[in-house]
Amino acid sequence: MAMVDHDAPFLAACRGERSSRVPVWFMRQAGRSLPEYRALRGTGTILEAIRNPELAAEITLQPVRRHGVDAAILFNDIVAPLAAIGAGVELTPGTGPTLERPFSTRADLDRLRPLEADVDMPYVSETIGILVRELGDVPLIGFAGAPFTLASYLIEGGPSRTYVRTKAMLLGEPALFAELLDRLATLSIAVLRAQVAAGVSAVQLFDSWVGALAPDTYEAMVLPASRRVFAEVADLGVPRIHFGVGTGSLLELMAAAGADVVGVDWRVPLDDARRRLGPDVAVQGNLDPVVCFAPWDAVAGATRAVLARNAGRPGHIFNLGHGVLPETDPDVLTRIVELVHAEGRTDGVEAPMDLGSP
Amino acid sequence: MAMVDHDAPFLAACRGERSSRVPVWFMRQAGRSLPEYRALRGTGTILEAIRNPELAAEITLQPVRRHGVDAAILFNDIVAPLAAIGAGVELTPGTGPTLERPFSTRADLDRLRPLEADVDMPYVSETIGILVRELGDVPLIGFAGAPFTLASYLIEGGPSRTYVRTKAMLLGEPALFAELLDRLATLSIAVLRAQVAAGVSAVQLFDSWVGALAPDTYEAMVLPASRRVFAEVADLGVPRIHFGVGTGSLLELMAAAGADVVGVDWRVPLDDARRRLGPDVAVQGNLDPVVCFAPWDAVAGATRAVLARNAGRPGHIFNLGHGVLPETDPDVLTRIVELVHAEGRTDGVEAPMDLGSP
Repeated sequence: MAMVDHDAPFLAACRGERSSRVPVWFMRQAGRSLPEYRALRGTGTILEAIRNPELAAEITLQPVRRHGVDAAILFNDIVAPLAAIGAGVELTPGTGPTLERPFSTRADLDRLRPLEADVDMPYVSETIGILVRELGDVPLIGFAGAPFTLASYLIEGGPSRTYVRTKAMLLGEPALFAELLDRLATLSIAVLRAQVAAGVSAVQLFDSWVGALAPDTYEAMVLPASRRVFAEVADLGVPRIHFGVGTGSLLELMAAAGADVVGVDWRVPLDDARRRLGPDVAVQGNLDPVVCFAPWDAVAGATRAVLARNAGRPGHIFNLGHGVLPETDPDVLTRIVELVHAEGRTDGVEAPMDLGSP
Repeated sequence: MAMVDHDAPFLAACRGERSSRVPVWFMRQAGRSLPEYRALRGTGTILEAIRNPELAAEITLQPVRRHGVDAAILFNDIVAPLAAIGAGVELTPGTGPTLERPFSTRADLDRLRPLEADVDMPYVSETIGILVRELGDVPLIGFAGAPFTLASYLIEGGPSRTYVRTKAMLLGEPALFAELLDRLATLSIAVLRAQVAAGVSAVQLFDSWVGALAPDTYEAMVLPASRRVFAEVADLGVPRIHFGVGTGSLLELMAAAGADVVGVDWRVPLDDARRRLGPDVAVQGNLDPVVCFAPWDAVAGATRAVLARNAGRPGHIFNLGHGVLPETDPDVLTRIVELVHAEGRTDGVEAPMDLGSP
């Protein structure tokens, strides 16, 4: 295994330390926005690509070469471990995760057998092994789905705007829901521990859809499971990032789950997020991914506005507030990286409480 | 015209005054959740129903009779005025507003001719006339779409999760976008003034999708147009409600637009919303509409939790945080009304700053 460069800007920022530049990477940087990705993927499925270490590693490396980002993120999918244990999840092109038989009863819990990462997903460790050699001093991020977001896929069985079934189980069968989340926490812990053992330098827990919940509901029904995930990877010593969308009311609770870094989407100004989270929590974000579809001057202005809101405080990882949209012009992403590297300051001090308030 | 009962609990709460009970109504209370609505609508279109005063009035009255809510809301649609002036908007069943030719250039502004409510939508005033006679002392709420949300329909041309085209115009052609919003503000003002002239007792401005925006963007590009709408109906003396979804970061700005009442969705606890908005702004909300799909005990618990968060402060109108979902069991809504009327307190005092913080 290659040596991890603890001074890498991304890792320093995760620890809340000053770094030589503001690090930047993009969620879904490896994917359909890149012509070289579309060419490489061809007609195979995502799960096939994930199961092919050479291919998955190459896909992971593409955006690092093209954009010069400060971190790579393993090419994988949060439902891949569910598919690997035979839970009945399909990745349907253009739709996302689907289940022929969505989870609805206690008997469905039997479909969640323990993950044996070495046996069930050996290709992931192989992929990470290739990447650690290839990436040199660029850190590699591993990830897993958070229990709530994984549960929402299992219970809805397909895309949802309202999460009716998920919330109905949460409210109507809280004991069953809690057990489902606990089992999914166990799964995520196994996934993350295997990734770190194989060599990733940081992990991100994706609770993409948790912003659908009220804070009271999150605290009572979701926080315990997510907290267990963070607690049970704490001994590994790698930075832990916690991400969701539309989580403006949940940021403090998501930090309380045990994250070193909290993802902030564009709806919450970074100065506001930092004031609420305090100096011990780093932040990741928060450019609206849709901004990339505007003319460059507007993209540059919005990028500078994100930097200005953080005001050079240590512990900021520049990213989008959600994943790269497939139709994004990749050249815009490259220019954002260049701009953040050229203009991002890391010499800021904690701003007084009244600075930058909206 | 019947006399407006200024002591009606709904109107008192809108003014932030104590009332005899906590008033409650539901967004989309008139609609597909009611079997009597489905029977009455038959196979006709929504726009046909809106254009038929007897039918529209009957649909408006159905939930008042069934649920005993404290306010009726005119059966109409925020894009109906756009259809009435020939802007090219269709209401596609199961999809919502669609445009064969979405707005994209300055020339499209020509499709927004001024609304002459008496000529273009005479049936609305007729409907309101019937309702004011039939409703007795139950207040009738009129409404219009807010400029941003109307613009998002015109620019996207169909459903969107990301509002890519809308944001691209906002950022890339800010002058055109501002002029579009200004014209839509003029339209909304005409709609609301005509409704009040015909007899509605309060108005709600629906900015349903504005939660997609960052606060900076809202303040610079949306607030001016929405502020103009509220300013130009202020002389009418009816309460003005401002509603959106996912607007946790925007509540202060939405109040600053000139609203007497701000809608709060379930993501923001009411005590937090009231602390941020201060005692001069009433609030409306904020039960998650999906809660209605849980067993009654859970629904009752969540309803009581909303009441507890408001702690009996004056100026709370109980509602859902978004519209009634079509599959909702209407009996659950009736029971929520009964519970709020039985247990809601209006004797609360402004809570100290540390009470109920999450």
